[in-house]
Amino acid sequence: MALKTRFTIDYYQEGILQNNRVVLAQAITLIESTLPADQTLAGELLDRVLNQTGKSIRIGITGVPGAGKSTFIESLGNQVAEADKKLAILTIDPSSQLTRGSILGDKTRMETLSKNSNVFIRPTASGNTLGGVGSRTREAILLCEAAGYSIIIIETVGVGQSEVAIKKMVDFFLLLMLAGAGDELQGIKKGIMEMADAVVITKADGDNIKQATQAQADYSHALHLFAAGESGWQPKVLTSSALTGKGIMEIWQMIEGYVHQTKTSGFFDQNRVRQNISWFHEHFDQLLRTEIMEHNQMQKKIQALTTEIQHGNISSYTAAQQLLNEYHQVNRGSNS
Amino acid sequence: MALKTRFTIDYYQEGILQNNRVVLAQAITLIESTLPADQTLAGELLDRVLNQTGKSIRIGITGVPGAGKSTFIESLGNQVAEADKKLAILTIDPSSQLTRGSILGDKTRMETLSKNSNVFIRPTASGNTLGGVGSRTREAILLCEAAGYSIIIIETVGVGQSEVAIKKMVDFFLLLMLAGAGDELQGIKKGIMEMADAVVITKADGDNIKQATQAQADYSHALHLFAAGESGWQPKVLTSSALTGKGIMEIWQMIEGYVHQTKTSGFFDQNRVRQNISWFHEHFDQLLRTEIMEHNQMQKKIQALTTEIQHGNISSYTAAQQLLNEYHQVNRGSNS
Repeated sequence: MALKTRFTIDYYQEGILQNNRVVLAQAITLIESTLPADQTLAGELLDRVLNQTGKSIRIGITGVPGAGKSTFIESLGNQVAEADKKLAILTIDPSSQLTRGSILGDKTRMETLSKNSNVFIRPTASGNTLGGVGSRTREAILLCEAAGYSIIIIETVGVGQSEVAIKKMVDFFLLLMLAGAGDELQGIKKGIMEMADAVVITKADGDNIKQATQAQADYSHALHLFAAGESGWQPKVLTSSALTGKGIMEIWQMIEGYVHQTKTSGFFDQNRVRQNISWFHEHFDQLLRTEIMEHNQMQKKIQALTTEIQHGNISSYTAAQQLLNEYHQVNRGSNS
Repeated sequence: MALKTRFTIDYYQEGILQNNRVVLAQAITLIESTLPADQTLAGELLDRVLNQTGKSIRIGITGVPGAGKSTFIESLGNQVAEADKKLAILTIDPSSQLTRGSILGDKTRMETLSKNSNVFIRPTASGNTLGGVGSRTREAILLCEAAGYSIIIIETVGVGQSEVAIKKMVDFFLLLMLAGAGDELQGIKKGIMEMADAVVITKADGDNIKQATQAQADYSHALHLFAAGESGWQPKVLTSSALTGKGIMEIWQMIEGYVHQTKTSGFFDQNRVRQNISWFHEHFDQLLRTEIMEHNQMQKKIQALTTEIQHGNISSYTAAQQLLNEYHQVNRGSNS
């Protein structure tokens, strides 16, 4: 989408460094723009504030439907904000292309947090199918860091593809689960649980405490089936209640413990550098793929070849070669 | 690698359709060649035999070190070959760039199978880092199918990245595990177990039977924690012994059951079409990426930008934009 108003780079830079939240929001909108001129400006802005970035703790939070994600984030957020830390919450909603329309919704959801001057809440563009889920969320994190936010929570709505993308941009990945969804712990999306640095069983209050404790034991067992990741961190399972406040402090302390452990071991920084390099390659691939897929002649060729493959008339191998030939022709054509 | 000898397309086609194993092996070597002229010929060959492909059952087999993969495949293979089915075994070894050197090793490993005229054994190029693991294995499958092999086993050596690639090219994915690697079932590579359509606990004989049965129960529990995949198939856990032959027949029947169930539901064919289309896109990406990465000017730029990122001098976002600009210049340059 294009911007209604484009400001000068100094305007963005100064506003962000002064933690002007209106300007921060405008800068994130700039980052999300797909207009080449906006992208150039956005890139320049990012480089200007780059030495102010990287100092936050980046936390990814996702959960099964009904786990009470907003309520949990509100509790955790208040815990963080009480410690006089500045907290930014970026929400990714891959189910909606109209994320900006849900700003009000999000603010209503996290009522106390949205009124806290230490807290910045913002849904980020989920990206189109070409750019990948939350493709601009990574840059939004950098801008929030430049504005002085020391804790960044990336929240995903809906369990699915987006978690893989988020895992690659955060330091700590937290999965919220509900107890008692059946005799067995059915319905965990394959692959999600294995990415988690911690699983939190929410709504562990009242009649639900016993079930939650049982679920905690079951998940602990399941997580122990897997080898510790490269981080050397053994994933933890905790319970919490947003109603009683139980567990929230422990969860925050666990995250701080993780950061301390991985900073000491060097994994924290290594992981960041690796994420940056992989992000560089991914973004290049995205830019190139977008360019290719948005090209009318290429679109037509892809569609035609896909049909041929579906009918079994051509191998995927030859189809790919033909598409590359087409691309070479397109490049030649544009320069002749 | 380039070919020593290139034959005519008719030579390859006729040889394959007559199940001449020497020609089949030569054709796989052609497919693995990175020379453009060879690739064109390979593509033409694939299209010529295309209507003879797709009729096999494609089975991916991997396992933890020490699980006895070769011995297991030998047992399963003999079971299959006894039913007078033709079996091809393609081995991917991502740890070695010199896969062809291990042909003899593989033949020695699977002694009885390698002497069976119904069985074709061949290591396939693991592909360089650009092309991805087993990037030509997919085409090797098609050639084996055209030569009349109705069961194709893709074996990976070493647990890791290659499993993801293989999962995308097979109908059924089998994971071999050992019992009693500790009190808990430590050491499962994250993500691998979740891809499995079945887990087989090997070496379930003698003193090991009790442990194997316990492991079977534990894995069954762990697998039930995850939702059934799109296939509607609930992953199974079985035990086997290559020594006593126990379980081998059941495993083969299970695979046949899977094929029957998913062919009836339509998932089998849908999955194949989806794999073909995704393979088309992946192969195009591979071809384009190889072209880019092998370009001297692009290599230098990538290296320079990576260093800048590591030193925190440039954002990944801007680096990607700069790399795209470089690519446009390269394209313009080559046409001027």
